[in-house]
Amino acid sequence: MAAALLACDWGTTHLRAWTLDEAGQVVEAGEFQLGVSKLKPGEAAQRFQQEVQPALHAQGLPAILCGMVGSNLGWTVAPYADCPAGLPELAACLAAVEAHAAWVRIVPGLRCQGLAGGPDVMRGEETQVLGWIAQHPDRARGRQVICHPGTHAKWVLVEDGRIVRFVTAMTGELFAVLSRHSVLKSDAPADDDAAFDEGLAAAGEGDALAARLFSARARVVGGGQPAESTPSYLSGLLIGAEVAATPRLLGLSGEEPVALLGDAALCGRYRRALERRGVPCETFDGEAAARAGLFALYQLGERP
Amino acid sequence: MAAALLACDWGTTHLRAWTLDEAGQVVEAGEFQLGVSKLKPGEAAQRFQQEVQPALHAQGLPAILCGMVGSNLGWTVAPYADCPAGLPELAACLAAVEAHAAWVRIVPGLRCQGLAGGPDVMRGEETQVLGWIAQHPDRARGRQVICHPGTHAKWVLVEDGRIVRFVTAMTGELFAVLSRHSVLKSDAPADDDAAFDEGLAAAGEGDALAARLFSARARVVGGGQPAESTPSYLSGLLIGAEVAATPRLLGLSGEEPVALLGDAALCGRYRRALERRGVPCETFDGEAAARAGLFALYQLGERP
Repeated sequence: MAAALLACDWGTTHLRAWTLDEAGQVVEAGEFQLGVSKLKPGEAAQRFQQEVQPALHAQGLPAILCGMVGSNLGWTVAPYADCPAGLPELAACLAAVEAHAAWVRIVPGLRCQGLAGGPDVMRGEETQVLGWIAQHPDRARGRQVICHPGTHAKWVLVEDGRIVRFVTAMTGELFAVLSRHSVLKSDAPADDDAAFDEGLAAAGEGDALAARLFSARARVVGGGQPAESTPSYLSGLLIGAEVAATPRLLGLSGEEPVALLGDAALCGRYRRALERRGVPCETFDGEAAARAGLFALYQLGERP
Repeated sequence: MAAALLACDWGTTHLRAWTLDEAGQVVEAGEFQLGVSKLKPGEAAQRFQQEVQPALHAQGLPAILCGMVGSNLGWTVAPYADCPAGLPELAACLAAVEAHAAWVRIVPGLRCQGLAGGPDVMRGEETQVLGWIAQHPDRARGRQVICHPGTHAKWVLVEDGRIVRFVTAMTGELFAVLSRHSVLKSDAPADDDAAFDEGLAAAGEGDALAARLFSARARVVGGGQPAESTPSYLSGLLIGAEVAATPRLLGLSGEEPVALLGDAALCGRYRRALERRGVPCETFDGEAAARAGLFALYQLGERP
């Protein structure tokens, strides 16, 4: 089939792009080291036209983009839409830009009431979550709890096809900064399953994290455990604390089934943490969900 | 009065030293940029003899040292003593070294059962805490809860003059690595009281910290708060989470009066956090407590 749409998930560190046919199936795919954190002001439009469109033979195609490309680091600011929001609400406020006269739209991020009266925000995950909903009609009925692990993990509550609330946990970033810059720093890989499980056990109910974190140090200097097991222990501790405590911030009991959406290896760690707590969970492909969301928004939006 | 003892609190980043007379009063005081983290192996003994003893006219005096100088980064390893322990137990296992034929003793650190069956450890704070107990006879009766804020804050439970249990919270280190290396990084000073209080409010009961931390980001990008207020907000959030959740790890309710021991400015922040929760607290001078502890150990130990 002929390509009909260029769909991009353009985040902080990567740009993933696909051309899709009129049925939403992938024609071509590409990945670019063009994360918005690496771009200068004004560079997004230029690199899109000079690199992304040509690489995917998509110069004349309409394009739809989600992720941090819609932030002040990206191409243009697509102002946050407010929860509750589903695909129709997002489709109604796509931000318009142009590239060689092609129709280009950027999906807005989402905002909701967060902790202590402040906001919470996301950019990109809303498209994956709503794309995952769009992939199966059953998911648009009743309540769904979706966890999207990552640098800033998102826990999303969907009711009848609309995102009603979400909360962000900086778990991946905490792991990165502690592994690189703290007394817990280590170059060792986080591949020790026993130490990961030990970390899960030390996570408790996700309270008193600053204290629980020190156990990663004390088990080495006071308990004789090998320093090389620290990254695995730390990973288990942080993920265990996240899965124990975060759902409660959404008003959930923490026992609801969870759909894990994202990188397979990372979802595997979350799955291990959730299963240890007896929480049913299933893992889904985040890229396929992103494509489904972008395609659905293209179908719903005002067309070129 | 003539100096009778050289007392040193020799930590990771600083060395504070005093000569004390036979009544424990300060004769001379000095501070040295000789934290053990900056020393090469073997250098502690050398710098002590070449710099510390001469600066305080203490070449011939007995000396007693506490802190990280007793770790594998320091002069010699003074193996951890196990809780419960008071001054007599510590005095019974001082580690012996020599400097120009002077009697020199190093106070051991303490170890206790920590989270999930692992250990917790301290080096230096035990001397301050037990010194604070020694400063007033009433404190040696019944239960005392002491908080020693810092890079690795310690919450210590004392019963009838002995440390029975403690827990370490990496609050200060979390603040440092997040302020320098994360999406929350900022060079602004943490001096905005309103933002600090906002952070205290966002700390909740100290659960789900990785999620609560993201509120420091979202309030700026999604809520229009000034980025310069992030360090103050982060400080309030981390300290608020610590004071809410950590006492429970010691089996306390969190409503017990707390003695704050350490740096006056930092203790002031903890006091604000505790008072917001209705917890009675009082601040005490950590250096005076360290001196009292070192002097008491000198009096109790086998003498030169």
